[in-house]
Amino acid sequence: MEFPEKVTINEMVLRDGLQLEKKLLSVEEKKILFSSLQEAGVKSFELGSFVHPKLVPQMANSGELFEKIAREDMDLIGLVPNLKGAERAKEFGVDRINFVFSASDTHNMQNVQKTTAESIEELKKINEFCERNEMVLTVTIATSFGCPFEGDISKKRILATIEQLVGLTIGDITLADTTGMANPKQVYELLKEVKNSFPEQTFNLHFHNTRGMGLANILAGLQAGVTGFDTALGGLGGCPFAPGATGNVCTEDVVHMLHSMGIQTDIRLEGLLKASALLENMIGHQNSSYLLKAGPYNRKYPVPVSN
Amino acid sequence: MEFPEKVTINEMVLRDGLQLEKKLLSVEEKKILFSSLQEAGVKSFELGSFVHPKLVPQMANSGELFEKIAREDMDLIGLVPNLKGAERAKEFGVDRINFVFSASDTHNMQNVQKTTAESIEELKKINEFCERNEMVLTVTIATSFGCPFEGDISKKRILATIEQLVGLTIGDITLADTTGMANPKQVYELLKEVKNSFPEQTFNLHFHNTRGMGLANILAGLQAGVTGFDTALGGLGGCPFAPGATGNVCTEDVVHMLHSMGIQTDIRLEGLLKASALLENMIGHQNSSYLLKAGPYNRKYPVPVSN
Repeated sequence: MEFPEKVTINEMVLRDGLQLEKKLLSVEEKKILFSSLQEAGVKSFELGSFVHPKLVPQMANSGELFEKIAREDMDLIGLVPNLKGAERAKEFGVDRINFVFSASDTHNMQNVQKTTAESIEELKKINEFCERNEMVLTVTIATSFGCPFEGDISKKRILATIEQLVGLTIGDITLADTTGMANPKQVYELLKEVKNSFPEQTFNLHFHNTRGMGLANILAGLQAGVTGFDTALGGLGGCPFAPGATGNVCTEDVVHMLHSMGIQTDIRLEGLLKASALLENMIGHQNSSYLLKAGPYNRKYPVPVSN
Repeated sequence: MEFPEKVTINEMVLRDGLQLEKKLLSVEEKKILFSSLQEAGVKSFELGSFVHPKLVPQMANSGELFEKIAREDMDLIGLVPNLKGAERAKEFGVDRINFVFSASDTHNMQNVQKTTAESIEELKKINEFCERNEMVLTVTIATSFGCPFEGDISKKRILATIEQLVGLTIGDITLADTTGMANPKQVYELLKEVKNSFPEQTFNLHFHNTRGMGLANILAGLQAGVTGFDTALGGLGGCPFAPGATGNVCTEDVVHMLHSMGIQTDIRLEGLLKASALLENMIGHQNSSYLLKAGPYNRKYPVPVSN
């Protein structure tokens, strides 16, 4: 059982984590949450998205948030669904954008009213735009491990989708398990195959813990040699299809597992737990972090004194 | 990444799962829960324990429950903490008992007011008693992956503890992560080592999901070749030290992961979900099953119709 020595965590709470929360956070609140995570040592963030404010009201202040946060030593990423989003991101000084589309046509139609092929055409335009404007472009392929409408998504389809991105000036590609359908065997096999087929490309993973397999899937990803994972503080995120189901795999639970296995992250768990408690106050309800309830594995308890 | 083809689930909800629940279930209710699990295909159960009724009131009707359930084709196990418990189990016709002691002296003192060495002496007496009475004896070593009072428990200590059981007429040995301290690397390494050191002995695993790593630890156990796991319906169990923390690793979540990886269990997931809903009604609160909220990975959703 082999693992990488070091892993990079890309913190999603300010985008994927918050976007379904009913209580809208102000730019000031988001900045406080960001600072708390920054203090814990987190250096990569998906900070917001440039979608239509009516579709995702929680993201309406994303541009303002980007303007108010210093980018020094930080990877601050804005999600964009189309070229217009990329143009808006640039207006706010964003220099790293992540373009998301689905491997499933049905899911992609639901999300952005485009087929997968149409989204890839859009990506080519965004790629040109980013080259012209010296912006870094990364890509997330949603529903890479299954689609809630279509069901299984074959390895062949994912490989063919990635093939179409070859030649673009893109950074990492993230394979996303958008609605928590992946299992560890599938993760290991798909990642081994895409890494073999595209040895020059870096692949990251994005899991939701909808069916409790988030950490097991990360373990499988580590064994396939993956070193970058999207996670969200407090496991925030939810799922529009499964009421009560949890969201993104939880940052503090992931970091705790990695550290307990001797894998470095440069993040301080104690700092994450402070940020997670702060998050609960801001959103006004409990989050789904295990660590916030139980504390780390090496927490010792006093021996009860008998009477 | 290699796995066994088939795994045996030992259902703990009627013992470890219920023992911290405040609402006491009647023998009739426990029988209904048992039947529901039996219908789902579960064939191995830890059904109750023979401890002092004042210490664990939920277990006071364990003997009566054993008397009212037919043992045909079933492994029905009673937990015993000492010889007296084994004698009481026999009075109720129990023919399979599981003796639990801790690898940590401090934890064992808290549980049964004995050092580990004293418990092993007790085990030898129970072993003789079982041989005389043709009862099957299995053993669980608690705190095998860490102790909430002492901290780390070394591999050396576990190996030395197992060494002392050689020569007894015992069946499987279960290594238990009693308070959810194990990580996947540790699980893989310890299990590889004990299986190498005692190649004739079958080792099972018992995890709590206190820090969310239950399924990841099972994945590591599978990779080390383990084929028997204790789980509890609805993830029931809790932890006396960590209020709000979840309990045993959840049967339906484990079975769902195994099936999605192509590993057989002879258990029907749909039946487990029915039993899990029934359990919530009986205990009067939500359990911590992911599957009960989200449904299986292959559940398809209708495509929303736009206006």
